[in-house]
Amino acid sequence: MAPPLSRRLLPPTLRALRRCYSASPASKAVIYDEHGAPDQVLRVADVPPVELGERDVCVRMLAAPINPSDINRVEGVYPVRPPLPAAVGGYEGVGQVHALGPAVTALLAPGDWVIPSPPSFGTWQTYIVNHQSVWHKVRTDVPMEYAATVTVNPLTALRMLQDFVKLNPGDAIVQNGATSIVGQCVVQLAKVHGIHTINIIRDRPGSEEAKDKLKQLGADEVFTESQLDIRNVKSLLGALPEPALGFNCVGGNAASLVLKFLRQGGTMVTYGGMSKKPVTVPTSYFIFKDISLQGFWLQKWMNSDKADDCRTTIDYLLGLVHEGKLKYEMEVSPLTDFSLALEKAMGKHGSHPKQVIRF
Amino acid sequence: MAPPLSRRLLPPTLRALRRCYSASPASKAVIYDEHGAPDQVLRVADVPPVELGERDVCVRMLAAPINPSDINRVEGVYPVRPPLPAAVGGYEGVGQVHALGPAVTALLAPGDWVIPSPPSFGTWQTYIVNHQSVWHKVRTDVPMEYAATVTVNPLTALRMLQDFVKLNPGDAIVQNGATSIVGQCVVQLAKVHGIHTINIIRDRPGSEEAKDKLKQLGADEVFTESQLDIRNVKSLLGALPEPALGFNCVGGNAASLVLKFLRQGGTMVTYGGMSKKPVTVPTSYFIFKDISLQGFWLQKWMNSDKADDCRTTIDYLLGLVHEGKLKYEMEVSPLTDFSLALEKAMGKHGSHPKQVIRF
Repeated sequence: MAPPLSRRLLPPTLRALRRCYSASPASKAVIYDEHGAPDQVLRVADVPPVELGERDVCVRMLAAPINPSDINRVEGVYPVRPPLPAAVGGYEGVGQVHALGPAVTALLAPGDWVIPSPPSFGTWQTYIVNHQSVWHKVRTDVPMEYAATVTVNPLTALRMLQDFVKLNPGDAIVQNGATSIVGQCVVQLAKVHGIHTINIIRDRPGSEEAKDKLKQLGADEVFTESQLDIRNVKSLLGALPEPALGFNCVGGNAASLVLKFLRQGGTMVTYGGMSKKPVTVPTSYFIFKDISLQGFWLQKWMNSDKADDCRTTIDYLLGLVHEGKLKYEMEVSPLTDFSLALEKAMGKHGSHPKQVIRF
Repeated sequence: MAPPLSRRLLPPTLRALRRCYSASPASKAVIYDEHGAPDQVLRVADVPPVELGERDVCVRMLAAPINPSDINRVEGVYPVRPPLPAAVGGYEGVGQVHALGPAVTALLAPGDWVIPSPPSFGTWQTYIVNHQSVWHKVRTDVPMEYAATVTVNPLTALRMLQDFVKLNPGDAIVQNGATSIVGQCVVQLAKVHGIHTINIIRDRPGSEEAKDKLKQLGADEVFTESQLDIRNVKSLLGALPEPALGFNCVGGNAASLVLKFLRQGGTMVTYGGMSKKPVTVPTSYFIFKDISLQGFWLQKWMNSDKADDCRTTIDYLLGLVHEGKLKYEMEVSPLTDFSLALEKAMGKHGSHPKQVIRF
């Protein structure tokens, strides 16, 4: 995994000498000095210019999302997080090449769009200087908010569809939390590969509208949890095959519903716990139904051998965005509105699409 | 998998003609006509002689255990069970070759000890007639109660140690329900392979004695559940490595304790649910600790390709018994005491060793 997006401060005299050709402009960053409630500890601060090493690239950030894992890192409840104090928030995003160190060999030119790949700490700032190997050039014919968010959520969806169970066209999967961005990506990526999706969503005002939206994205079936409060959920499958793979990002009852749908020998992959309730499994599911339970964490996957083709996969996903086969709602706000966007991302103003900061 | 140990009834005249050379003696069997409480529905009945086919072998049963799964089959709560009415109980056991059909090619002679392998329904009877392919000849220099019980419990222990995680000498595993026969076999088989065991047992009168017994079998550490009611159970590991593999036959809190011991990326295999409580897993265990949960069921394993070497494995296990490296307590009773043995097996008279019926 690449090192954190560090900022090497220049001594003032040297900085003055080299600013024009080998240092970043002064930057603004969203930083925190201690863990705590993000709306308490995060602040926008001025950051001095940073020297470019021989093979460094200075990138002017265009956009970066506020993901739930970013919030968890600031809270300090995430097992991997940047060192304090003066940690810069954010983990993924897209930027434009601003300047190149004199010995950069990567095929990069000013104006190119690049993303840190694998993603790494500190994307919530206007300028980032880091080694050329950190940056992956991406196409510019997609909305920048998609390039900014392609790694964490769409890549999670694709990996979970491909890495646990061998699926063939015509097979089915089941998932809860289907209205989440990962959930929406699962629906669309499954459709691209000919896989049917059975989707479980919360009971709440607007659930009918949410069902329609998911069906427009290609969902085969969408149920609210209360609709599944029956003995034999499989009677609802109709012509769909019993799913061999399930995704759980909720826990509690919603995880039990995924398990109920799974076929003999099926696998449930847990990648989130939105309900903050654990996963509870009757013994008979393990013994007689031969169910396997596993977890997926993108940050761990990024450290594995399998991540070698990460950039190829990102290009594939952005290709799908370009073709209109992968989409999800986002709300883009300027850095000056960071506080409000953060509150929305934290759910303090009801339901909102994913919040993306434009720098 | 072999067909059930069926009994083909002879017409009376033919039976009289052929009894001396091609039919079994009349037999006594423990049968049930409907599912229910085993002490209500099971009865010892006379069964008429059975014709021997060309390649059939008539076996005089010597001994068969009353396993918990036998009880569950009679109760009707087990997903696989023999058809009613007149189902004969029992699933494993050992017998002595009594007579051979005229075209038997297997290297069997009267007096040889044989076990049904894979095990199959109907071992609770004095004579069984079945195809030669059902019977596996075993050594006679071990106590017959071990030959009668080698398949279900010791084989489960060995398969769980070998089929889920690649263990090397010096590694450790953790298990609950360690005083069960499978648990005792796990301790001893692990020791044979240089694997350390961390064992969890119930808090109950006599738990200190149970600890001593397990340590005499080779257990490295034995804890009662209440001893593990601390924040950091791993502080108790001392020089032992964190276990990569755990076995759960209890559920509830005892399963959570196994999970607490497991190392990053570890696997817990569930093969029983003695507490009748489900397995509850915090989301973080899946995502950040990368724990996998799987199940093991011998009856399913027997239907898999992996079961091809079942008989070789049985011979290996009986070899360990012969060498004194695999032992567990059993109580042997005559068929006339079946009712009492059944009550003991059902836990109606406190704690008893495994009940084995001698025919």
